[in-house]
Amino acid sequence: MDRLKATYLIETSASLEDAAAQLAGEQSSGTFVAVPGETEELKARFAARVESVTALESLPDPTLPGGREGKTYQRGEVVISWALENFGPNLSTIISTVQGNLYELKCFTGLKLIDLDFPPSLVDQFAGPRHGVEGTLRLAGAERGPLIGTIIKPSVGLSPADTAEVVRTLAEAGIDFVKDDELMANPPHSPFDERVDAVMRVLNDHADRTGKRVMYAFNTTDDLDAMLRHYDKIAESGNTCAMVSLNSVGVAGVKKLCEHGELTIHGHRNGWGMLTRHPLLGIEFPAYQKLWRLAGVDQLHVNGIANKFWEPDDSVVRSIGSCLAPMAGLQRVLPVVSSGQWGGQAFETWRRTHTTDLLYMAGGGVMAHPGGPAAGVTALRQAWAAAVEGKSLGDAAKEHAEFRQAVERFGDEASRRQLA
Amino acid sequence: MDRLKATYLIETSASLEDAAAQLAGEQSSGTFVAVPGETEELKARFAARVESVTALESLPDPTLPGGREGKTYQRGEVVISWALENFGPNLSTIISTVQGNLYELKCFTGLKLIDLDFPPSLVDQFAGPRHGVEGTLRLAGAERGPLIGTIIKPSVGLSPADTAEVVRTLAEAGIDFVKDDELMANPPHSPFDERVDAVMRVLNDHADRTGKRVMYAFNTTDDLDAMLRHYDKIAESGNTCAMVSLNSVGVAGVKKLCEHGELTIHGHRNGWGMLTRHPLLGIEFPAYQKLWRLAGVDQLHVNGIANKFWEPDDSVVRSIGSCLAPMAGLQRVLPVVSSGQWGGQAFETWRRTHTTDLLYMAGGGVMAHPGGPAAGVTALRQAWAAAVEGKSLGDAAKEHAEFRQAVERFGDEASRRQLA
Repeated sequence: MDRLKATYLIETSASLEDAAAQLAGEQSSGTFVAVPGETEELKARFAARVESVTALESLPDPTLPGGREGKTYQRGEVVISWALENFGPNLSTIISTVQGNLYELKCFTGLKLIDLDFPPSLVDQFAGPRHGVEGTLRLAGAERGPLIGTIIKPSVGLSPADTAEVVRTLAEAGIDFVKDDELMANPPHSPFDERVDAVMRVLNDHADRTGKRVMYAFNTTDDLDAMLRHYDKIAESGNTCAMVSLNSVGVAGVKKLCEHGELTIHGHRNGWGMLTRHPLLGIEFPAYQKLWRLAGVDQLHVNGIANKFWEPDDSVVRSIGSCLAPMAGLQRVLPVVSSGQWGGQAFETWRRTHTTDLLYMAGGGVMAHPGGPAAGVTALRQAWAAAVEGKSLGDAAKEHAEFRQAVERFGDEASRRQLA
Repeated sequence: MDRLKATYLIETSASLEDAAAQLAGEQSSGTFVAVPGETEELKARFAARVESVTALESLPDPTLPGGREGKTYQRGEVVISWALENFGPNLSTIISTVQGNLYELKCFTGLKLIDLDFPPSLVDQFAGPRHGVEGTLRLAGAERGPLIGTIIKPSVGLSPADTAEVVRTLAEAGIDFVKDDELMANPPHSPFDERVDAVMRVLNDHADRTGKRVMYAFNTTDDLDAMLRHYDKIAESGNTCAMVSLNSVGVAGVKKLCEHGELTIHGHRNGWGMLTRHPLLGIEFPAYQKLWRLAGVDQLHVNGIANKFWEPDDSVVRSIGSCLAPMAGLQRVLPVVSSGQWGGQAFETWRRTHTTDLLYMAGGGVMAHPGGPAAGVTALRQAWAAAVEGKSLGDAAKEHAEFRQAVERFGDEASRRQLA
C-alpha cells in the first residue's frame, strides 16, 4: 500500500530507534497510557511506521531546551511513514500529521522536517499549480525565462496614483513583471481596488500601444472573502497574477485562492526564516515547497545567490532545484529569485542551476541603476544572456555599457576587479 | 496617533540601535539602496519607529547561523511601532509586518517576537471570540469551570460507530467536553459527516435523557469549503463546537471559520513547538494568543502543568494568564489545559493561576482510570474542588476514593508519598 513518507533530522538523549518510535506513536495512535480500543489490528493498519534510522554525530550538549537529559545527544536521520487512510487528501491534516505535536516531545532536543515523499496516488488528488513554469512564462508573453521583474518600493506609503507612476516608468523600461511588496496589501492609503484600477490603466494602455503585457502581482493578502474579491478584481482588470503571503494566510486560505479561477499565483514566503533558520528546528525548503505546490502555488520565492539575507547560496540552489523537480503529474513551480539581485549574480546562478526557468527580481538593481530603470532592465537581460552563453561577468561588462554601469554601481570588489 | 507595538528579543553583532533600525526599515520602507519616491514626508508617516532599546547580556558566540560575524553578540529587547495606516485591519498583513522577512536579516543571530500591543482603535475593528470563556461555559451548561474534558483515543483508526461507543461511555461517565484528536479530521475510515451523525445520536439522546448536553469539538480541519460544510453539519447536529488546527489551516481560514456562524471555536495549536521552542527564534505565546484572539478563536490550547511535552510550567502559567487577560473590548479566551493531566496537577494549576476558567483535558487520566471512565471524571472533579478549597493532594486523596485511585495509578513518587 502507498504511504506518505517524511524524513526528519532528529537529536535525542534516547536511542534513535526509541525516539523515532515515539514520534511515530505520537503522530498516529499514541497516548501516555494504553487505552481500550487500541487493538493490534487497529495499530497494524493506522500506526505510523519507522522506515529507517541513520545515525549521525553525537554531541555533549543538547541543542534545544526542555528535552530529556542524557549523557550525550545523538543526531540521526529517520524516515517515518503513514498510511494514506489516516488523513486522506486533507492538506491541513497532513501538515498536522507530519508537523504537529512532534516538535513538543521531550525525547527530542532537535527536530527538523527535511523532506516529504508523497506517493503519486496521493498527489493525483491535488490539482497543484494551474500554470506553473510554462504557464506563467506564457501569460507573461515570454518564450523563455528568466522573466525580469521588480518590486514596488518604497514598500508602503505610495498612493495608487504614485504606484501607477512607478509602474509606468517600469513598463517603459521594458520590465516583464512587477510586484507589490508584502507589506502593501489593502491599506487605507492604497485601497486594493483603487491600486488595481490605477496600475492597470497604465499597463493596459502600455499593452495596447506596445503589444507587451507586463504581469503585475497584486498582493491579495487579507481576510478570506476580501482575498477572493481582490482575486476577482484582478481577473476583471486584464491582469493574470495574484500575490499572497503564504505563511501569513495559511494553507487553507491559499489553496482556496489558488482554486478560485484562472490567475497565476505568486507565493511570497515572508516569515520563512522563523521556520527554517535553526538547523535543528522547523522545516527545510524541499518539504515546504511540496506542501505549497499541492496547494496550487505557481511561483514561489527562493531568495537569491549572494542575497542580503542570512541564507547561504547552497540553500538557494537547492530550493531552485526543488521547485523545478518533478512531483508526480503536477506542474513545476517557477522559482522567484530575489533579495539584493542586480544582474551580477546571474553568472553564478546559471553556473549552479543551468536553468532560465526563473523569475529574476531586482529592486534597487532596476530603480537605482545610474542610467535609469530602462538601463537597469537592459543590464539584467545583458547579464543573463551573457551568463547563458558561458561568458564571464567581466566579458559581459566589456560588451555592454549598461551592465558595466551596474557592476560599477552595485558590484562588490571582486566584481569590480573584472572591469579592469 | 495610535500605533501597533511589537516587542522583540534580539541578538546581533551590530549595536542594538543599528539592528533595531534595520528591522524597522525592512518592515516598513526599506530596500538595499535608496530609491526615488522614498521622500522624507513618506518616511515620517509610514516608517516603523524604534520605541525603545534595552541591553541584555553579551555572548562570545552567535546563537543562529548565517548572521554577520562580530567579536561579541549582544542581546537586547527592542520595541518597534507602526502606524495603523500601514496595513489597516488586515490580520494576515499585520502578521507579515511583525513576523515577515525580519527573521531573515543578516544583522540578527537571534530574533523572537515576545509580545504585541494592539491599540484599542485597531482591536475594535475585529469581532474577536464570539463566546470566549463565559459563552463556552454557558454552551456547555456549566455555571463555572473548569470544564472537564477528554480526547478520543486512539487518535486515528476508530470508525464513526467505534467513536460513538467511546463517546457513549464518556457521556455516561459525566464528562463535560470531548474532542477529536488533531490527527482525526475527515479521513476515509471516518468521514466527517458520518462521525457527526454517529456521535450526535449518542449525545442528543444523552441530553434528552439526562438534560446534560456534552460539548463535542469535531475537528473541522480541511480544505476551506470542506471546513465550512463541516461547520454547518455541526450546527445542524445540535452541537455547539468546532475544532480547528490553527497552524495547519492558517489565520485567513481560521478567521473565516470563526465568522461563519454561532459555534464556539476550539483552537488546537499543534505545530506550536516549531514556532516557539527555541529561545531566540520564532514567537512567544502572549503574542501568538493575541493574533488568534483577533481571528476569533474561543478556546486555545496552553499545555498543562507537569505535561509530557518539553514546555516548563512557568510558560504554561504565563499562557493561561495571557488567554485570560483583557484585550480592549474582546472576549477572553478559554485556556485548554492538556497533556498528561490526570487531576494531580489541579493543585499546582490552581495555586499558580487561581482560576477555574479552564477547559481541563485528561486523556488516559479518564479512560485508563482503574475504576473506569466515570471514576476518572469524578476523580478530576474531586481534585479541582479540593484544590479550590485550598486542600492538599494528600487531603483530597484521603477524602475521595476515586481520586486516591488516580494518584495510585498516575501519580509520581512525590504524589504517592502523600497517600501515606
